[in-house]
Amino acid sequence: MKDKFNPWEVEGDVNYSKLIEKFGVTPMKELGGIFKKEFLFRRRIIFAHRDIQRILEAVQKKNNFVMMTGLMPTGRFHIGHMILARQFVFWQNLGAKIYIAVADIEAYNARGQSLEESRRIALESYIPGYFALGLKPKNCEIYFQSDRSSDGKKAGVYYKLQNLFARHATFNEFKAVYGAIEPGKIVSALLQAADMLHPQLPEFEGIVPVVIPVGLDQDPHLRLARDISQRIKNPKFLQLSSTYHYFLPGLKGGKMSASDPTSFIDPMENETSVKNKIKKYAFSGGQATLEEHRKKGGNPDIDVCYQYLKMLLEEDDKKLQQIYENYKSGKMTTGELKNYTIKKLNSFLKDFQKKRKLAEKQIDKFFS
Amino acid sequence: MKDKFNPWEVEGDVNYSKLIEKFGVTPMKELGGIFKKEFLFRRRIIFAHRDIQRILEAVQKKNNFVMMTGLMPTGRFHIGHMILARQFVFWQNLGAKIYIAVADIEAYNARGQSLEESRRIALESYIPGYFALGLKPKNCEIYFQSDRSSDGKKAGVYYKLQNLFARHATFNEFKAVYGAIEPGKIVSALLQAADMLHPQLPEFEGIVPVVIPVGLDQDPHLRLARDISQRIKNPKFLQLSSTYHYFLPGLKGGKMSASDPTSFIDPMENETSVKNKIKKYAFSGGQATLEEHRKKGGNPDIDVCYQYLKMLLEEDDKKLQQIYENYKSGKMTTGELKNYTIKKLNSFLKDFQKKRKLAEKQIDKFFS
Repeated sequence: MKDKFNPWEVEGDVNYSKLIEKFGVTPMKELGGIFKKEFLFRRRIIFAHRDIQRILEAVQKKNNFVMMTGLMPTGRFHIGHMILARQFVFWQNLGAKIYIAVADIEAYNARGQSLEESRRIALESYIPGYFALGLKPKNCEIYFQSDRSSDGKKAGVYYKLQNLFARHATFNEFKAVYGAIEPGKIVSALLQAADMLHPQLPEFEGIVPVVIPVGLDQDPHLRLARDISQRIKNPKFLQLSSTYHYFLPGLKGGKMSASDPTSFIDPMENETSVKNKIKKYAFSGGQATLEEHRKKGGNPDIDVCYQYLKMLLEEDDKKLQQIYENYKSGKMTTGELKNYTIKKLNSFLKDFQKKRKLAEKQIDKFFS
Repeated sequence: MKDKFNPWEVEGDVNYSKLIEKFGVTPMKELGGIFKKEFLFRRRIIFAHRDIQRILEAVQKKNNFVMMTGLMPTGRFHIGHMILARQFVFWQNLGAKIYIAVADIEAYNARGQSLEESRRIALESYIPGYFALGLKPKNCEIYFQSDRSSDGKKAGVYYKLQNLFARHATFNEFKAVYGAIEPGKIVSALLQAADMLHPQLPEFEGIVPVVIPVGLDQDPHLRLARDISQRIKNPKFLQLSSTYHYFLPGLKGGKMSASDPTSFIDPMENETSVKNKIKKYAFSGGQATLEEHRKKGGNPDIDVCYQYLKMLLEEDDKKLQQIYENYKSGKMTTGELKNYTIKKLNSFLKDFQKKRKLAEKQIDKFFS
């Protein structure tokens, strides 16, 4: 475990650079222009990449490009998923065609969940959440892995890719990705490679740059897809680009877990529940007593409320910097930081919940 | 090798019963009615089965049923393939809907052959051969594994099955089928299971009896598909039926090999070539000298010409029995047996070649 990356722990810059080195990804440089307007880039919450220059060029030249991602339709859509969803909206606004795969085959093979249950969860929880956060149905394809071919014209070529890819990866490569290997995992990894690469088929967008925003834990899948894409002769693919972001930490620190409701905020929760959860569970970087806090100051870098402000809630950099300094100096107490976060979070969720209601209507239209 | 079944060696009844025991298939009993008219059944060239009763019942009650098979589009269609093709025609005439999978994905993954080459070989060699032997385009689906979904309505469900099946087989089961295991082989075996089972999907025939005629060497694939079909809860499948036939031996005895033209007869060969090949290469059960042959007699059970008559060319049982006895007693010489076989084979191929020409026109129509 010591040597393993844990993308849910936010502990300052130490691991950050080690991990970049370990995974062979490139640290994200300061990007100019439109990227400065998105705090995920500005604050380096998106902290690393592979081959991002191809995407930046497409943006600059206003060329076609694709943002591709997947969702695992288990548990529920929670605020942790919003870091990724925010990126869909950002890339779509920049002109990207959005591809979103609902990984119902992977949920079936790796987690034993029925296709029906996956469909329900995706349609009732994740996808309305995306729309509520600003994803537009236009220039966006959302599909189920088990049913990619509802459009007759495109029928089959996605699965054909999955089958062809099998020749271009070795058993040991799958082992490296997964450790213990099962047929269901091999098949899922190949389908995931098809998810990432099929937008470049002539039946879809043709050969275009594709950016895939992921957490570093998903990088083995990405490496496999990248390797396969350059080994196969026909069809040809442009190498995939990817970005890597931090995960929003769980309420108590560590990872958000769908099976532990005290670890996350459900965006449909009411004001009182949010308030109580933050007060009771949110891991604090403050000192044990007010007196000590005033004297020594708090540690915003490990404080969950501060991370939520930085990664999700506080658009204003100056305000965020002020909170950082005040909390660090002890001028701002843990109670004050929690109250501010509760206020911001409830205001954010109120807006989300309103938009979520409107989004439900879009879902039916989108999938009909 | 000693312990391994070699379905290309025809050496009487000894191995025959041992193998049935070893593989757990059931010896084919004498079938009545229409089955008596087909020498492959009458002569027990189809020597074993699994669950054939389900098919016999469908035939008797005139219920829908399917005959499913696959072709590996490597090499060329030769007379060895005719034992199987003859069965397509037989089952189709009995009312079966025929499904034929061109295993271009398997050829790609297991033999490194391009999809284009597979398509060419299937369309130029195998499929016109089937039509020439009497397969009718009506009530017959011939498809490529890489492109099952040309019909939009059915799009995707075949590949969906392949993906779902992955959960219902273990790594060790694949190992048992293949020995050394590679991702391409796992994927191919799953797709082969989908080939065998997808005719029962609601988008195709619904739940119906399916008979799969194979050589015993293909039985591991069949066992895997049978096991998976009963483990998966949704969709549901009727257990597969199968029949097992001997292979036509190669000219020199042993296996026909596409890479050795002296081991087989290409059905497009001319009379002189056929004559020369039989004279020069056909493995004989006769004695070294005429004198010895007259005295000791020949062995029709290992004589390749006799096997060709029995398995392909001589419809008349009495005539065949007469040849058997005359050759065994030494009354008929090897030269006489060869000449008779050459005559029968050339007459058979003349008819085939004529029909093959007509069949070429059907191909274009069939695939358009």
